[in-house]
Amino acid sequence: MQNLEQQIQFIIELDQLKAVYRKALIKADNNRYENSAEHSWHITLASHILAPYASPGVDINRVNQMLLIHDIVEIDAGDTFAFANHDVLGQQSEKEQLAAKRIFGLLPEPQASTYLSLWMEFEESITLDAQFAKAMDRIMPLIQNMQNQGGSWAQNNVSKQQVIKRNQYLEHAAPQLWQYALSQIELATERGWLRDQS
Amino acid sequence: MQNLEQQIQFIIELDQLKAVYRKALIKADNNRYENSAEHSWHITLASHILAPYASPGVDINRVNQMLLIHDIVEIDAGDTFAFANHDVLGQQSEKEQLAAKRIFGLLPEPQASTYLSLWMEFEESITLDAQFAKAMDRIMPLIQNMQNQGGSWAQNNVSKQQVIKRNQYLEHAAPQLWQYALSQIELATERGWLRDQS
Repeated sequence: MQNLEQQIQFIIELDQLKAVYRKALIKADNNRYENSAEHSWHITLASHILAPYASPGVDINRVNQMLLIHDIVEIDAGDTFAFANHDVLGQQSEKEQLAAKRIFGLLPEPQASTYLSLWMEFEESITLDAQFAKAMDRIMPLIQNMQNQGGSWAQNNVSKQQVIKRNQYLEHAAPQLWQYALSQIELATERGWLRDQS
Repeated sequence: MQNLEQQIQFIIELDQLKAVYRKALIKADNNRYENSAEHSWHITLASHILAPYASPGVDINRVNQMLLIHDIVEIDAGDTFAFANHDVLGQQSEKEQLAAKRIFGLLPEPQASTYLSLWMEFEESITLDAQFAKAMDRIMPLIQNMQNQGGSWAQNNVSKQQVIKRNQYLEHAAPQLWQYALSQIELATERGWLRDQS
């Protein structure tokens, strides 16, 4: 029963992700901040719905598992706004590495190693699966902000160029969605929700 | 692009599940009520972690998809406490059927039919995949309440026999977890968190 006890402890630890708040706003719940647990659910399910647009070779079940675990490190490291400055994002990366080792290390082997390497694959974003997963993580705020008069973009004075760069994984992982994202970014800029640097 | 527009509308609709609150308490976030979106994330990931205990023949990727969508109907029908009375639970079932048709109907075909039938399979709980999925949905409050001095059981005067009956899907879908659940229920009764009717 030792393995099971470790697995239950890991599952209990996960509860803490429900207390990590992001910059995204939930329009459906009085514009409160979104937490990283419900965000993880949303993009995991979205990845199934948008799977028909994934480039050939994407394994949606692996993408799924990556998205379920991608934010767990925030239990220790907290959430950092996507458009924070370079130093802040660099420090965040170190904290997240330590967090991944501690939190996935709660699991028995081989699960501990499997999930740690899946998380690292997501972070490195070299494989096509990881790129599609990253693309899902990044298109969701776009979808949410377009429904909410610019949402976290407008609140934080984000530029069109920043959002284009951030969504670039779509270009190879899901070309049709890339075209969709570009058209939405154009619309957001016209409406004044994104700052146009050019 | 018509399919994509429908899929984006479905993804936007999902946001509303973050505003559906359950009876479960989040200890890690000042004992606020849990919403159904973060709950769905938690049990989907838990199902991966506990997959080694699933009976032979369980397809964990199908279980995964069932768990991601299992509560979506609550967007229209709301959440009902698991131990509510019989009439309330009966009315809830009708409301959920209508909700499933409306919400999954937002998707283009074949996704609309695929997700509707996956949700119905979960509800009917006849297949082994559906039974393992149900078992995950039901063991999670047990894990949470054991960490929180009885949590929603203690608050709502729930009996040992009610919880045993509710977790019975484990018996065939994951026998080792069934033994674990029984031992935890015994412990909760000894501690006075569950009422002993016998």
